[in-house]
Amino acid sequence: MEKFSRNTRIAAITKTLIENPNKVINLSTFTEEFNAAKSTISEDILVIKETLVRQNMGRVETVAGAAGGVKYVCGMSKKDKDKLIDELCTILREKDRIIPGNFIYMTDIMYNPEIIRKAGLILASAFVDKTVDCVVTVETKGIPLAYEVARMLGVQLVIVRRDNKVTEGTTVSINYVTGSNKRIQTMSLSRKALKSGSNCIFIDDFMKAGGTALGIINLLKEFDSNLVGIGVLIEDVEASKKLVEDRVSLIEFSGLDENETAVIFPSKCFK
Amino acid sequence: MEKFSRNTRIAAITKTLIENPNKVINLSTFTEEFNAAKSTISEDILVIKETLVRQNMGRVETVAGAAGGVKYVCGMSKKDKDKLIDELCTILREKDRIIPGNFIYMTDIMYNPEIIRKAGLILASAFVDKTVDCVVTVETKGIPLAYEVARMLGVQLVIVRRDNKVTEGTTVSINYVTGSNKRIQTMSLSRKALKSGSNCIFIDDFMKAGGTALGIINLLKEFDSNLVGIGVLIEDVEASKKLVEDRVSLIEFSGLDENETAVIFPSKCFK
Repeated sequence: MEKFSRNTRIAAITKTLIENPNKVINLSTFTEEFNAAKSTISEDILVIKETLVRQNMGRVETVAGAAGGVKYVCGMSKKDKDKLIDELCTILREKDRIIPGNFIYMTDIMYNPEIIRKAGLILASAFVDKTVDCVVTVETKGIPLAYEVARMLGVQLVIVRRDNKVTEGTTVSINYVTGSNKRIQTMSLSRKALKSGSNCIFIDDFMKAGGTALGIINLLKEFDSNLVGIGVLIEDVEASKKLVEDRVSLIEFSGLDENETAVIFPSKCFK
Repeated sequence: MEKFSRNTRIAAITKTLIENPNKVINLSTFTEEFNAAKSTISEDILVIKETLVRQNMGRVETVAGAAGGVKYVCGMSKKDKDKLIDELCTILREKDRIIPGNFIYMTDIMYNPEIIRKAGLILASAFVDKTVDCVVTVETKGIPLAYEVARMLGVQLVIVRRDNKVTEGTTVSINYVTGSNKRIQTMSLSRKALKSGSNCIFIDDFMKAGGTALGIINLLKEFDSNLVGIGVLIEDVEASKKLVEDRVSLIEFSGLDENETAVIFPSKCFK
């Protein structure tokens, strides 16, 4: 039987843990893969554990019991969080991002895996100690961010559609009023998409008054499910009275200044 | 200045490499972080390199020159690929997945991060030696898979919309005919979303005749960009003559059998 050095085992175990956030991996997976005693693997994991804590890179938790093992719980140092949020502020203040109607063009950011991976990690870290069964979003721009949060929390992603699709079976549709310009919109979700009694968090790219989030709360009621948290990349702090409380955001937007530049600041949430 | 053991450095460097697929990381990042000589870090990386090759977990490449460094290139062993594809086949053959209209319900699979991460890795590994500037998909079901492929290749994701959005500035829209039921559909992409001269791969959940892929080729022409590859999770091999050649898929679907069960097999692409 092949033997592996401690260094080799540590590299391979680290890779497996990092690739499977919030998933409990039984130690026997590693004892079999490396033909090593449980005590040896435990020592390897202790090294990884100490490294992550020391470097502020998240943590490794031990889960006791028959279905027990170890899992990687995502995390990021305050320094790295601040760095990403500051970089995002600089990017969002770029003058040529303002498009007709005084919107900020941010599609390139929402679809940039390097940025979205880190932003998703920051948002996920806010919910990592809650019981979360799934991450909900409304198509389209927030999907990569919501997917990253779901991946980091090791749970299912649920995407609410704006139309009905023949390929999704029976759907439940609700109408809701957008908080900012009072338009009536529809959102739909397949009956098969969400188990009754799920604890959900809602992730989106941008929040104004929170009409969409309110719609999500009502839609979740149709599935006997609860909203236990809201996370957005940017929130518009100028928008009229917020319809939902208790949310986290990375960045605050408060309109355009006299030079037609977006007024953008880091949120207080991760300060 | 703090000192770190080889074990600690290997755990931390592995994490950083795995979290940044296909991104060149300069060795100075690590020499500064660990207060270590370049030769020491090179030895650490050699251990990680050998581990990944030995365990069939992808590879670490050294990039020479001033902007050089090391990068993790994703990969998966044939055994793990076969395992995922076989599991997917079993799931897709479940009888209660057939919904009215003889569609297979597969939304839960497309939005399951554990499955999509591995499926994305398999598809990305097919394009990892090509020059790819971005990954293109059409909303909505294929977005998480396309995002994973983009993340693994370290490139931008581009999402083509079925409607125009006021928040995306000037858009280019084209009409295309679906290959299977000859309906006319529209797809739109913001002018800002794609640089001229980009090499793109198209990723989607399901391919029938390939009408959507043909539409993408025409849309890319409007941006003076090229399609250099197509990857889908499932392809319908019963569909009439394929409109596009040269694609990879994980799974082949050939209709329902006399028991109304989906006829599903692993594709030849990754066999």
